[in-house]
Amino acid sequence: MAETLADVIEYPKSYAFFIDMPGLKSGDIKVQVEYDNVLVISGERKREEKKEGAVFVRMKRRIGKFMRKFVLPETANTDAISAVCQDGAVTVTVGKLPPPEPKKTKTIEVKIA
Amino acid sequence: MAETLADVIEYPKSYAFFIDMPGLKSGDIKVQVEYDNVLVISGERKREEKKEGAVFVRMKRRIGKFMRKFVLPETANTDAISAVCQDGAVTVTVGKLPPPEPKKTKTIEVKIA
Repeated sequence: MAETLADVIEYPKSYAFFIDMPGLKSGDIKVQVEYDNVLVISGERKREEKKEGAVFVRMKRRIGKFMRKFVLPETANTDAISAVCQDGAVTVTVGKLPPPEPKKTKTIEVKIA
Repeated sequence: MAETLADVIEYPKSYAFFIDMPGLKSGDIKVQVEYDNVLVISGERKREEKKEGAVFVRMKRRIGKFMRKFVLPETANTDAISAVCQDGAVTVTVGKLPPPEPKKTKTIEVKIA
């Protein structure tokens, strides 16, 4: 299973992962999150059935299983993931968590011993 | 411009050429016949426009021009070519010419000199 080439773009409020999966329809593609922070995009492409009288002259296209994993950054919101497949290219969008509240300076009163 | 991997299948009445062009729509793909016997399938995939605030974290997918040429066999009928694009995979079907009439045995009368 060769690596599936991908593009990753970070936007101010989300991350976008782009993967090519030519010949696959939406229903053939699976998007999962493992261990809370690993995005897994997978699919399987099957060889055309051999019709009677057909001769396979050259078979060079990639078939079989496609898979790609990405470790998500801490700011990724795994409850806000959506995926779209168009023209054999999958786009998975992962929202970002709001930035944590800035830590306030805490003043400790120094008592005279 | 890297080679675009292809499958070729010969059927009793046609040839089928399968090429992966993920991310391309029908309108972006050109199918031509050069010199009467070279099938040329080409297209161009453009990089997503960079939106404001976007950071290209990783850009590994193939973009730019795709092209693939096939020398057609003598039996190909270049007047019977059709192309379909689905899920980023293009299928070009080229009909076959009917087989030539079998050459008849010709008998030459031998005259007596």
